[in-house]
Amino acid sequence: MTAIVVGYIPKPEGRAALRRAAEEAKLRGARLVVVHSERSGRDLADGEVETEDAQLEVARKELADAGIEAEVRQLARGADVAEDLISVAAETAADFIVIGLRRRSPVGKLILGSNAQRILLDAPCPVLAVKADDAADQGGA
Amino acid sequence: MTAIVVGYIPKPEGRAALRRAAEEAKLRGARLVVVHSERSGRDLADGEVETEDAQLEVARKELADAGIEAEVRQLARGADVAEDLISVAAETAADFIVIGLRRRSPVGKLILGSNAQRILLDAPCPVLAVKADDAADQGGA
Repeated sequence: MTAIVVGYIPKPEGRAALRRAAEEAKLRGARLVVVHSERSGRDLADGEVETEDAQLEVARKELADAGIEAEVRQLARGADVAEDLISVAAETAADFIVIGLRRRSPVGKLILGSNAQRILLDAPCPVLAVKADDAADQGGA
Repeated sequence: MTAIVVGYIPKPEGRAALRRAAEEAKLRGARLVVVHSERSGRDLADGEVETEDAQLEVARKELADAGIEAEVRQLARGADVAEDLISVAAETAADFIVIGLRRRSPVGKLILGSNAQRILLDAPCPVLAVKADDAADQGGA
């Protein structure tokens, strides 16, 4: 059985990636493997960690309600997001990886994060890059 | 009817992108719009231009044999590949754009081309990035 691997962070681009990955998994009858990266523990108070866990739980429940069985892997804090996604993709022989991209900054600065670049270049499979609000602003270039 | 837009160049990564785009179009019953970029006329002798046209014709025939109706748009020489793909994606309300990426150089230099970066960041829809030989080296990281 083929797999779709998605990098999830509790931010708009992470939710957009998860939504799209779920649609793609459903479309092709693939299993969905969610790699969940918490932000660094140093940046978070205890309450925030709970919030992240709760958000992931909400996401997991939404997937279950949509009839999609998702396997969630928690990425250890401090682990390398790009390497982890790449190794999970290799291990599961993923059909593709879905990642979320931030939109351009308001001043239009063109920056693709280093993690995104590494995943795009080093993944053993194709990578689907999704931006937040893709559904909302289709048609605008 | 939804559309898959693919940027095609007669190189291994362009062929890989076209192959994958055709599979995705078939999977979801979408139309396939191929945006064909020739290399700059200045860099090519007349015979080479004919070769490029012949290669595109071969690709088109392969698609037709696979039962996939593709619309091929020729990108004028000197036109901007990224802008053209983005505007075709907006015009066709594309489900996603498929682009081919070159592999890392043998010395492992990490470079994502500026066209690829612009398409990833500015496209009105998700972007599927495919590398050459993806089928051949699945599982290797």
